[in-house]
Amino acid sequence: MAKKIPVGILGATGSVGQRFIQLLENHPFFEVTELAASDQSAGKPYAEAVAGRWKLSAGIPDYAKNLVVEPCRPLLGCKVVFSGLDSSVAGEIEYEFADAGYIVISNSKNHRMDGYVPLLSAEVNPEHLEMLKFQKTKGKIVTNSNCTIMGVTIALKALERFGVQQVMLFSMQALSGAGYPGVPSMDIVDNVIPFINGEEHKAETEPLKMLGTLKNGKVDFENIKINAQCSRVAVSDGHTVCLSIKFKKKPGLEELKMALSSFRGEPQRLKLPLAPDPLIIVREEEDRPQPRLDRNEGKGMAVVVGRIRPCAIFDYKMAVLSHNTIRGAAGAAILNAELMFKKGYFG
Amino acid sequence: MAKKIPVGILGATGSVGQRFIQLLENHPFFEVTELAASDQSAGKPYAEAVAGRWKLSAGIPDYAKNLVVEPCRPLLGCKVVFSGLDSSVAGEIEYEFADAGYIVISNSKNHRMDGYVPLLSAEVNPEHLEMLKFQKTKGKIVTNSNCTIMGVTIALKALERFGVQQVMLFSMQALSGAGYPGVPSMDIVDNVIPFINGEEHKAETEPLKMLGTLKNGKVDFENIKINAQCSRVAVSDGHTVCLSIKFKKKPGLEELKMALSSFRGEPQRLKLPLAPDPLIIVREEEDRPQPRLDRNEGKGMAVVVGRIRPCAIFDYKMAVLSHNTIRGAAGAAILNAELMFKKGYFG
Amino acid sequence: MAKKIPVGILGATGSVGQRFIQLLENHPFFEVTELAASDQSAGKPYAEAVAGRWKLSAGIPDYAKNLVVEPCRPLLGCKVVFSGLDSSVAGEIEYEFADAGYIVISNSKNHRMDGYVPLLSAEVNPEHLEMLKFQKTKGKIVTNSNCTIMGVTIALKALERFGVQQVMLFSMQALSGAGYPGVPSMDIVDNVIPFINGEEHKAETEPLKMLGTLKNGKVDFENIKINAQCSRVAVSDGHTVCLSIKFKKKPGLEELKMALSSFRGEPQRLKLPLAPDPLIIVREEEDRPQPRLDRNEGKGMAVVVGRIRPCAIFDYKMAVLSHNTIRGAAGAAILNAELMFKKGYFG
Amino acid sequence: MAKKIPVGILGATGSVGQRFIQLLENHPFFEVTELAASDQSAGKPYAEAVAGRWKLSAGIPDYAKNLVVEPCRPLLGCKVVFSGLDSSVAGEIEYEFADAGYIVISNSKNHRMDGYVPLLSAEVNPEHLEMLKFQKTKGKIVTNSNCTIMGVTIALKALERFGVQQVMLFSMQALSGAGYPGVPSMDIVDNVIPFINGEEHKAETEPLKMLGTLKNGKVDFENIKINAQCSRVAVSDGHTVCLSIKFKKKPGLEELKMALSSFRGEPQRLKLPLAPDPLIIVREEEDRPQPRLDRNEGKGMAVVVGRIRPCAIFDYKMAVLSHNTIRGAAGAAILNAELMFKKGYFG
Repeated sequence: MAKKIPVGILGATGSVGQRFIQLLENHPFFEVTELAASDQSAGKPYAEAVAGRWKLSAGIPDYAKNLVVEPCRPLLGCKVVFSGLDSSVAGEIEYEFADAGYIVISNSKNHRMDGYVPLLSAEVNPEHLEMLKFQKTKGKIVTNSNCTIMGVTIALKALERFGVQQVMLFSMQALSGAGYPGVPSMDIVDNVIPFINGEEHKAETEPLKMLGTLKNGKVDFENIKINAQCSRVAVSDGHTVCLSIKFKKKPGLEELKMALSSFRGEPQRLKLPLAPDPLIIVREEEDRPQPRLDRNEGKGMAVVVGRIRPCAIFDYKMAVLSHNTIRGAAGAAILNAELMFKKGYFG
Repeated sequence: MAKKIPVGILGATGSVGQRFIQLLENHPFFEVTELAASDQSAGKPYAEAVAGRWKLSAGIPDYAKNLVVEPCRPLLGCKVVFSGLDSSVAGEIEYEFADAGYIVISNSKNHRMDGYVPLLSAEVNPEHLEMLKFQKTKGKIVTNSNCTIMGVTIALKALERFGVQQVMLFSMQALSGAGYPGVPSMDIVDNVIPFINGEEHKAETEPLKMLGTLKNGKVDFENIKINAQCSRVAVSDGHTVCLSIKFKKKPGLEELKMALSSFRGEPQRLKLPLAPDPLIIVREEEDRPQPRLDRNEGKGMAVVVGRIRPCAIFDYKMAVLSHNTIRGAAGAAILNAELMFKKGYFG
Repeated sequence: MAKKIPVGILGATGSVGQRFIQLLENHPFFEVTELAASDQSAGKPYAEAVAGRWKLSAGIPDYAKNLVVEPCRPLLGCKVVFSGLDSSVAGEIEYEFADAGYIVISNSKNHRMDGYVPLLSAEVNPEHLEMLKFQKTKGKIVTNSNCTIMGVTIALKALERFGVQQVMLFSMQALSGAGYPGVPSMDIVDNVIPFINGEEHKAETEPLKMLGTLKNGKVDFENIKINAQCSRVAVSDGHTVCLSIKFKKKPGLEELKMALSSFRGEPQRLKLPLAPDPLIIVREEEDRPQPRLDRNEGKGMAVVVGRIRPCAIFDYKMAVLSHNTIRGAAGAAILNAELMFKKGYFG
Repeated sequence: MAKKIPVGILGATGSVGQRFIQLLENHPFFEVTELAASDQSAGKPYAEAVAGRWKLSAGIPDYAKNLVVEPCRPLLGCKVVFSGLDSSVAGEIEYEFADAGYIVISNSKNHRMDGYVPLLSAEVNPEHLEMLKFQKTKGKIVTNSNCTIMGVTIALKALERFGVQQVMLFSMQALSGAGYPGVPSMDIVDNVIPFINGEEHKAETEPLKMLGTLKNGKVDFENIKINAQCSRVAVSDGHTVCLSIKFKKKPGLEELKMALSSFRGEPQRLKLPLAPDPLIIVREEEDRPQPRLDRNEGKGMAVVVGRIRPCAIFDYKMAVLSHNTIRGAAGAAILNAELMFKKGYFG
């Protein structure tokens, strides 16, 4: 068996970092050899550094417990790093790593809209990886999208042939999307908050880059109008997004469902380790998807779509659910890395 | 001081019935003299009949405790009855009461769309009361709308001059809207349910009647297209509704806000006991309205609107909150009755 | 490989029945060949019979979907049945099955305190299986304990050598313990209910039988005084129980912890499929156990104990967590069956 | 009418400070003339200083909105101050104010156990006010107890004649007790936390001082053994405390209930504005008290006791509920001030 690629995790003690550690346990391609975090964590064994902040129901994987946390400086012994850094520092640190020759697989928002940086969803726009050769740094940066829009964009990609024109998007988002400590409990018990800072702008723009066409290393953004209203609800994991969609070529209802349920991407064809198959699960029950019941489909990597029915104004409406910290964050980044590995980007 | 009108409550032990009892305590116009409920409750003092099912945080008002519950038959000693009957029985029982000469102020859905029955919101369409003279029964039936659409329709009425054309509506609805026992707790803890049986149809049609024009006792439905997606969330009281609206004559942002905050109806002009003033509260904070913080504005009768901002597809989007069992149910029905009383409908 | 024992599930559509179906998927000893439920479910494929009521986050296992549900009558083709029947019918039906020669592994409360019926926890009192030979029916009934007391009794067994004398028990119990629909959501949102019907009596008595000594087929109840106060909280799965314990021979703190963490029973020695090892996990963090983080330890079969510290009145206090529908119900019953299988009770 | 006493509030922007502001609106004895908070709030109108952090469902009272926040230094124009300061700074600041001649009515924990500082519950130990003359500062400090123990101590006082000996105490505490932002939502959704930092020690000791006997300005602590286990649950307001009590002279069940429901203190006799009457409400239903339904009894100042029944080990067990930020914090402090005003302590 081939030797595994050593990888590091930047921001290893945060929410996304924890998911990276969990999802990379026993990974067939990658082996986590280095964990990096803020200076106050540096120097401690990971289990000690993260004590009291590990919030996943499965405990810390054994392999990570005794790894000594390093500072987030480009002195790591691996060449590929996953970044779950907070956006307040991700912009600069990720650039430093790329500049020093590392391949940075980032879940942070900072570089997503940069000119030659792919905003990559392995199933949606694998061809955007070609942008990497236009990046001038010795290393490279690849990003994935905002958690809310990830499942939605996969669904829109599946419907591309019908000419998506307008999308009204309304989200009910999980608490884990805000990180930890994140939303104070007094703000969400017996309550919803119809506001998430910066989220609607991301939801209205990121899909246009992901669905766009590559020309000379730059992306012609797709010409879709998206309007987003984002709310926070008392759910631990799993973003539920309600959509109303207007098409250029309105499909029949069954045609629409078939387009969703039969959609596969490069990761499915390559049978990548984290690629779910089916990718999109279409539910016929009138009351699904629901986050508690459906978020773990495909080990958290599948997209579950339900309540597909005619819209009184646009063509169709539906509800789209995906796990926000797996499919919407760490899992998506790892799937991107798996694709890059198979495509030879890791040498 | 004038003698109060004696009134009865049909369905007195249910969720809406409890709110009627609470809101009618010490009412200046009305005195509850009779409580009616199902046959198994009949014959018992109210406190005993409702034991274990009274779910309002304020206890049972003293005046109601010892009223002996009567069966729901048109043999009550009052001439005006409020109905919080379950829809499985409301259709027939309310008709029997109207036939026997009672004025029935109903919160049930059964007769809302009947030809000569006003679907009345005291601030929206008080002129629809003229439909009553076309009802052929000795008594009369007046209904109020579905809880989700009540606050929304008041907001749409306030914006009428701008020519509302299309409305995308997404609701996050409280548990109390499902009555008791209603939603099982296992279905809502760490969850949302993107489905409420029959709700979307009501939300898409009832406002059209309420906002419609009366002609010879019939309503010309307003020509607005509404599309609704309704979800249940872990909130006790207070429906949050996100709207995107397209107008014929798009107002400026400040003009829109002013139209909402300055709107008053007949109840405010008549200073009816349950009429809130202001009727619509416009919040400027980026994260309001929120059900736990705002549902009790105007003693639960005000409508709170916030997050008013441009829509990327239609003209404006916003969030509208109202208390679903007060403004959206029992309170609305009582306000209707207050209006009728002042207009001389109770003789 | 040996042929698997065919087994049936009584009450297959209920909450405990669903867990039986989930936990018996690909079981090395048993194969579910028959599902039985109420007459209105009988005759339908299981997936159809349970539609809208399947509440586990993993979906219905494929093997069960097309099994046609049979009525709960002793005409099943297997000889071993698991019972998740509601207590309103379990008493009679389970007896009918035992009378007809079936071995009934029951999770229901009805026969737990019957004279010759073992109240079995595979790790606590495996020797009580000898009671079966005193049962006069052709078949046999074996029960497991109430969900709240299961993890507690395992902990008390581990501490047996110190002479447990008095136990103050206070539980915060999950919603799934009440079945489905169970607790109405309006009763638990922003609330706790300091009452669970019949629970405290079970918690105060069942451990005494489980920890008791067998004499001539009857159990001499253990002489421990338990006082229980049981509350319902807004948690989906996982009962948290706080204990204060008085011993005859008070151990040192480390001795106590060691007794807990080193405790193993017959299932661990036999390496039974559902036997967790370690059985009791002792956590040292000041804020553990917590249901969301710890309930799935040992695939839901481990008992997690934390906050072990001196009691100001008795000797020690601690918090004990176990998964109420796995360790506390279906999983415990299956572990009992695994033990019986290994001991030759299934022929 | 007599002129009102001008008062100030220290820590006015915090959770307890907000309750002070709310409960002191239109108070018959006191008029809030000054609000003080941290230096970054100082200089701003209160509404601006507290923007985004006001978390009570009723909005900011008009009187407070435009009061300019001052720094927490003893330069305020009033002579009586209520302190809702965080314990990290309360110790020093409160002492500075007392030293400068202010009467400090504190809700903070810092000085509660100080030698000559009364730990005052107006209904429990009004005679402890005599300790003030032993304080050497020009001004004085009066404290109230921890929120969890407040309602419990009132119940224990009502039962004093039976000789309370031992109390096992288990609490399920509301989120507001942790202040804001307090408990992260990810820690409490679908969860309970069986740990609250420092809480158990306070619960085990503070009642002993409050119930103690005054001798020469010092308190002989009452000889009761209390053991406490404290948990956090997903409730906004209202602490539920389960007790098992052992008495010297065990009363009959009805005698016990009567002792609770008939108990009145000095505040009730003086008809103080915030004094609830009845003080203790005894509920007979098997499933009460519950925080959502009962926390607002007596405007949040009453104590609700239910589920009174024999204990299998001690004499009786019961559940005690009180509103933690009203009776357990700001309301208790104001009631203390009302008592002092009537007793002439404010000159």
